[in-house]
Order: sequence, then structure tokens, then C-alpha cells
Amino acid sequence: MKEPGKIIVYTGPMFSQKSTSLFLELLREKYKKKKVIYYKVSLEVKKKVPMDIQTHWSHSPLEHEREKFACFHIPTNFDLVAEMGDEDTIAIDEYQFFERKWIHPQVLQYVNAGKKVLVAGLDRDYMGNIFESMAYITAEADKVYKKTAVCYYSGEPATHSWKIGGDLSKRLETGASDKYLPVCRRVFNQLKAKFKEGTLVQ
Amino acid sequence: MKEPGKIIVYTGPMFSQKSTSLFLELLREKYKKKKVIYYKVSLEVKKKVPMDIQTHWSHSPLEHEREKFACFHIPTNFDLVAEMGDEDTIAIDEYQFFERKWIHPQVLQYVNAGKKVLVAGLDRDYMGNIFESMAYITAEADKVYKKTAVCYYSGEPATHSWKIGGDLSKRLETGASDKYLPVCRRVFNQLKAKFKEGTLVQ
Repeated sequence: MKEPGKIIVYTGPMFSQKSTSLFLELLREKYKKKKVIYYKVSLEVKKKVPMDIQTHWSHSPLEHEREKFACFHIPTNFDLVAEMGDEDTIAIDEYQFFERKWIHPQVLQYVNAGKKVLVAGLDRDYMGNIFESMAYITAEADKVYKKTAVCYYSGEPATHSWKIGGDLSKRLETGASDKYLPVCRRVFNQLKAKFKEGTLVQ
Repeated sequence: MKEPGKIIVYTGPMFSQKSTSLFLELLREKYKKKKVIYYKVSLEVKKKVPMDIQTHWSHSPLEHEREKFACFHIPTNFDLVAEMGDEDTIAIDEYQFFERKWIHPQVLQYVNAGKKVLVAGLDRDYMGNIFESMAYITAEADKVYKKTAVCYYSGEPATHSWKIGGDLSKRLETGASDKYLPVCRRVFNQLKAKFKEGTLVQ
């Protein structure tokens, strides 16, 4: 029986460099001559679509690290196990988009087949509610990196994300700095209280 | 508004020194002149019962570190918020015994009141199923320490617990080395497969 693999989780709020950490670890796997695949979960694709990592990282200080990876956008109903091949390591970015019951057993199959699974995703939505798939993979993981961003208001380490645009009725919405701000727990509590009172002006 | 506190989680299998890590951090809080309380969740008490930490640690290499703490056994329906006082830091050991819906909002109230909450507990039961309360507090935490034990069979880092005695129908049962062994994922998978086939001889 092959040695089981490992699960490593990078989690935290928006802008906490989760994807970057995932990518850097994936690069290290490549330097170790491992066969790697990068998957990014997306609400905007209906099937697996090749992704241009060159573009994705072209404005990054990591640009000199760009290499050809196998990179794909995948939908939230992606059958990961059906795609299992001879890769050593897979990275799954935006893991919070997955339903726990769908994805968790599939990740276990990868691990039990000896593969390393790197996971990045949000721990909480912009109302502070925990994503179930992330909670369970964090509890399952061999190693958990809790990343922080910088609070937009206080400059303190930011643990929460706050939504400033887009559709506030949607828990899951792809977006970046146009829709979200990183905030510390204190500021988050203040904003959430005002939002609930209806006195929030943004 | 007072600065929010933090949640620090120590998790892993049986014998991974979770409680010890919790205790050492609680000692550090005490050296910082913080007011601390230690709670140990127990299936065997119906109300809060003072606990003799002197006895609890008397066979430990930490014996010279023993100090008078406020220490209590608490039941799984303990109303933590009703007990909130002027303590700075609380430690909750055996947190997996709590139901998530009961305890999670209470921990948030402590954190939002500026208190530090140290949590220790099992991530998985002896069948590898994740404890929901631990999954959610791990996702909520500011810092997560994934502890390992030493696999009884392989000597590798142990991530799982295997039950060798007591009542196998009970997911939650207080016990120690008479009932559990720490095992690595590979050994765990082998034992679980044999158990399911009915060919396990222990």
C-alpha cells in the first residue's frame, strides 16, 4: 500500500495571500520533480476549462517564478476522483465554493491514494458565517496556515472580509477589491452591527 | 469598544499532547498576570465541579509548573456565557464533546468581549469522522496547531485515533491508553478496512 498523502490548508479572509501561498508551495513541489495540477473552483464555468497561469500571475512579484503548470478552472460539481491520474500533488484554490458532502470524500480518496492536496479558501463569508467545506477540510488537514490580511480601517491583522459592492444577497460571488475589504474582528463587528441596524453608510 | 480576543486551537488525535500544549499556553497567560480559567468538558458530570489540577498533573514532567488555577469539570450543556466574568483567558479542554450549535456562538461572545479562548480537542473520532464543533472552531480560530502523536505500529507521526477497548458503539467515550491507540493514516486505513470486513483481530 502506498504511503498516504497529506492535506495542507491555507485559509483566512480575502487578500490574505492564500492563493499566493498555495502557488509557492506548488512551485516547491515542482522543484521536487513532482507532477502537479492546479485547480481553481469557479462559479462561472460549467466544465473544466484550461486556465492561463501566465496571465493570472503576470502582475505579480512572482512573475519570474511563472512556469507552465497544468491549470484549470473547474465548476463546483467537478468530479475530482474521475480525473485522478498519476499526478503527485493537486492544488485546489477557492475551495469554499465546494459543498462539503460533495468534495470532502473525494479529497480523502486522493490522500489515501498517496497524493498531496493543497487547499486554499475563505474560512468565512462576509457575514462571518463559516464555510462548511472549509471547516471540515481544516479539521481533516495535516497542517493549517491561518493567513491574515491588513485591516483596511485599523491596520491591524485582518481576519474577516467585508463586502462593499456587488450583490449583498449572494454569499458566494467572485470578486476582488471592487467588492470586498479585509477587516479585523473589531471593525467587522462594528460594521456588522451597523449593517443589521440599517445605519451603515458605505 | 474593547479589542476582540483571539481563538487558539490545539487539535489532533489522542496522545498528541493537546492538553499539555493548552496548559503551557495557559501558564504563559498567567505569567502575563492574566486572570485565567480552565474548563475540561466531561461526559461524567451534570454540573460544574471543581477539579484538582494538582492531581491531574502530578505524574507529569510539568509537575514543577503546577500552580493553582481555577479549574472545573463542566458538562456538555454548560452555559459558558452565563459564567462570563472578569477573566482574561479561558481554556476549554475536550471541546469535541460540545455540540457546535450550542458552544460556537458562546465562544464568539467571549472573543467579542475581548477574551482569549484556548481550545483543545480531537479533530476526528476513532472512525475518522470529524467532530463538527471542532471543525467550526478550527475554521473560526486565529491560530491552529495541528498536533501529532506517534503511531503505535509504524512510529510515523500519528494523525488518527484507533479504539481498542470500551464500547465500540460509542463515538464519545472518556478513556485513555486502555481504550485508544494513536495511528498514522496508513495504519488507520488498514485497520478500518479490516474492521469493516470483520477480519480485524485485536
